Amino acid sequence: MTIKVLGYAAKSPTVPLAPYQFDRRATRTDDVEIEILYCGVCHSDLHQARNDWGGSVYPMVPGHEIIGRVLSVGSKVTRFKAGDRVGVGCMVDSCRHCSACKRGLEQYCEQLPTYTYNAVDRHDGMSTQGGYSEKIIVSDAFVVKIPDGLDLKGAAPLLCAGITTWSPLVHWKVRKSSKVAVIGLGGLGHMAIKFAKALGADVTLFTRTPGKEADAKRLGADKIVLSTNAEQMSGVANQFDLIIDTVPSIHDLNPYLPTLSLDGTLVLVGYLGGLEPVLNTVPLILARKSVAGSVIGGIAETQEMLDFCGKHGITSDVEVIPIQNINDAYERMLKSDVKYRFVIDIASLKNG
Amino acid sequence: MTIKVLGYAAKSPTVPLAPYQFDRRATRTDDVEIEILYCGVCHSDLHQARNDWGGSVYPMVPGHEIIGRVLSVGSKVTRFKAGDRVGVGCMVDSCRHCSACKRGLEQYCEQLPTYTYNAVDRHDGMSTQGGYSEKIIVSDAFVVKIPDGLDLKGAAPLLCAGITTWSPLVHWKVRKSSKVAVIGLGGLGHMAIKFAKALGADVTLFTRTPGKEADAKRLGADKIVLSTNAEQMSGVANQFDLIIDTVPSIHDLNPYLPTLSLDGTLVLVGYLGGLEPVLNTVPLILARKSVAGSVIGGIAETQEMLDFCGKHGITSDVEVIPIQNINDAYERMLKSDVKYRFVIDIASLKNG
Ligand SMILES: [Zn+2]
Ligand SMILES: [Zn+2]
Ligand SMILES: [Zn+2]
Ligand SMILES: [Zn+2]
Repeated sequence: MTIKVLGYAAKSPTVPLAPYQFDRRATRTDDVEIEILYCGVCHSDLHQARNDWGGSVYPMVPGHEIIGRVLSVGSKVTRFKAGDRVGVGCMVDSCRHCSACKRGLEQYCEQLPTYTYNAVDRHDGMSTQGGYSEKIIVSDAFVVKIPDGLDLKGAAPLLCAGITTWSPLVHWKVRKSSKVAVIGLGGLGHMAIKFAKALGADVTLFTRTPGKEADAKRLGADKIVLSTNAEQMSGVANQFDLIIDTVPSIHDLNPYLPTLSLDGTLVLVGYLGGLEPVLNTVPLILARKSVAGSVIGGIAETQEMLDFCGKHGITSDVEVIPIQNINDAYERMLKSDVKYRFVIDIASLKNG
Repeated sequence: MTIKVLGYAAKSPTVPLAPYQFDRRATRTDDVEIEILYCGVCHSDLHQARNDWGGSVYPMVPGHEIIGRVLSVGSKVTRFKAGDRVGVGCMVDSCRHCSACKRGLEQYCEQLPTYTYNAVDRHDGMSTQGGYSEKIIVSDAFVVKIPDGLDLKGAAPLLCAGITTWSPLVHWKVRKSSKVAVIGLGGLGHMAIKFAKALGADVTLFTRTPGKEADAKRLGADKIVLSTNAEQMSGVANQFDLIIDTVPSIHDLNPYLPTLSLDGTLVLVGYLGGLEPVLNTVPLILARKSVAGSVIGGIAETQEMLDFCGKHGITSDVEVIPIQNINDAYERMLKSDVKYRFVIDIASLKNG
């Protein structure tokens, strides 16, 4: 027996999100039924709601930075019980047997993971629907625990913005003495700074916008470099072991490559598309540098990140909104008018 | 007291190479004086002789795949003695104290290595001149030993074509069970195949030209994929841990990125310039793939490569020419009409 759930949905690419009632599946034996308390608002919510990337299916309930409380669990679930504080991120399932899944890299599942919304459940064929809603039902293998003491509102963005920057920092072995730079100070960028700093790195923010110095330093940056200033750019030549590039739109990578150290890597986490202007191979070849990409993170490493956050008291800087403001929030996101992530207080759904 | 040496030089970008007498420095206390026996002919010899990359200084004696015999050594040299079989590659000096040099990565010296020709000696300011000549005088730290039993003619190309492909294979940890692909079957590509095979990898050659199957298999390739054949390309999707891209001219990387495995790397060793058409980041991001570059190799790893070659009987496939044929050889190289490297028999210099 499916259950009726209230949420907010995009019903087409061009109309505002509005209240929408839909079905969730009956709880399976390995499922966790979650009452959603908060849901972060990711740029990809906006892009998928508006079909900017193609492939959107409507009605669509966005949201993949989900924080909630366990209501009930299926008969085979042992890791969770009613009342637990839990999170769900960008994925709710994967094939579970390919070599990527076996390595805990479900985000790179060879058969593609099942995304939290705008996807199709691989067992019952129902549309998946996201966190802008009262409840969600998710297999326990894709549910993570939120450490005691971590603020729930600020924890929501950890499930996408957080893990997206945490995963490359850990994969490329950032540690004390590492020199890390972050390009872009938004939802992803502000988490990258916090994590890199907490991991012991020396952290630089690249930004095109003057006036972000105080905020970047408060978040943990040791240094701010104005990427439009040639002198400042040449002052950081050959410095960085890792650059986390969070910019979501087309931009020129060539000015950043000379700032990588020998064997340094620039990892793209925000931009899907063609690298224009064309990438010059000379700095890559002459100092064995790499340009790489990375997407979100695996479930086990998401839990590791959350445990690290619990230990170091790290959460996202958020602005909490009632769900009725979601369409305004999208407009403000397009103007980068948010520090640094909107989080929906799902209790507001009751207000209609 | 400088010594007079006979060689072949380019005297301008547009005239053929011709006999040329020039000065080499008097042997310093750390120098090795070498009688040159063979010198491989690298594509960069041609490009620098013709000023294709700019910055050429004339007269220029090219040649950085040098094999010879020690004539004499300076008072502080203990590793070499008269009669030893030795090699000199692309570098004859570096700063020796930067962090790259300290790690044995002289090719990435922060103050740039001193190249074997078309460069300026960092101590006496003389122009460096390469291996198309009777003798060379090189600091012992930049001289390598040629293992007993290794054919000297076939060993010459190891000093540039060899180390250029060996270094990334070792850096990216190719071993038994690795899946390696090589793009391009020329001087570099044929060495990449031999090395990858000897390291235990499963080796695929990507080529645009049908009819290379038999030769590629003889060199050690397990499989040949025609990169112009979409079906063959999709048949190797998500396969390769490492792709060594030896193509020296502009070419589209996008068809190759889907053939990399999760965490796979495409390393450029041949092409300096802009990546056109533009690189699509999607395959990088969705499977944490990298595009990287690499240039030649360090002195210690060059010695390791030579020792490996001695043990496995690996040399380059060469066509030996008298130095009087160098200008014809350049024309044939431009048509890829060589299997797989020209090597000059320097004894022919005596014939004028
Ligand atoms: Zn997201
Ligand atoms: Zn899988
Ligand atoms: Zn060369
Ligand atoms: Zn150095």
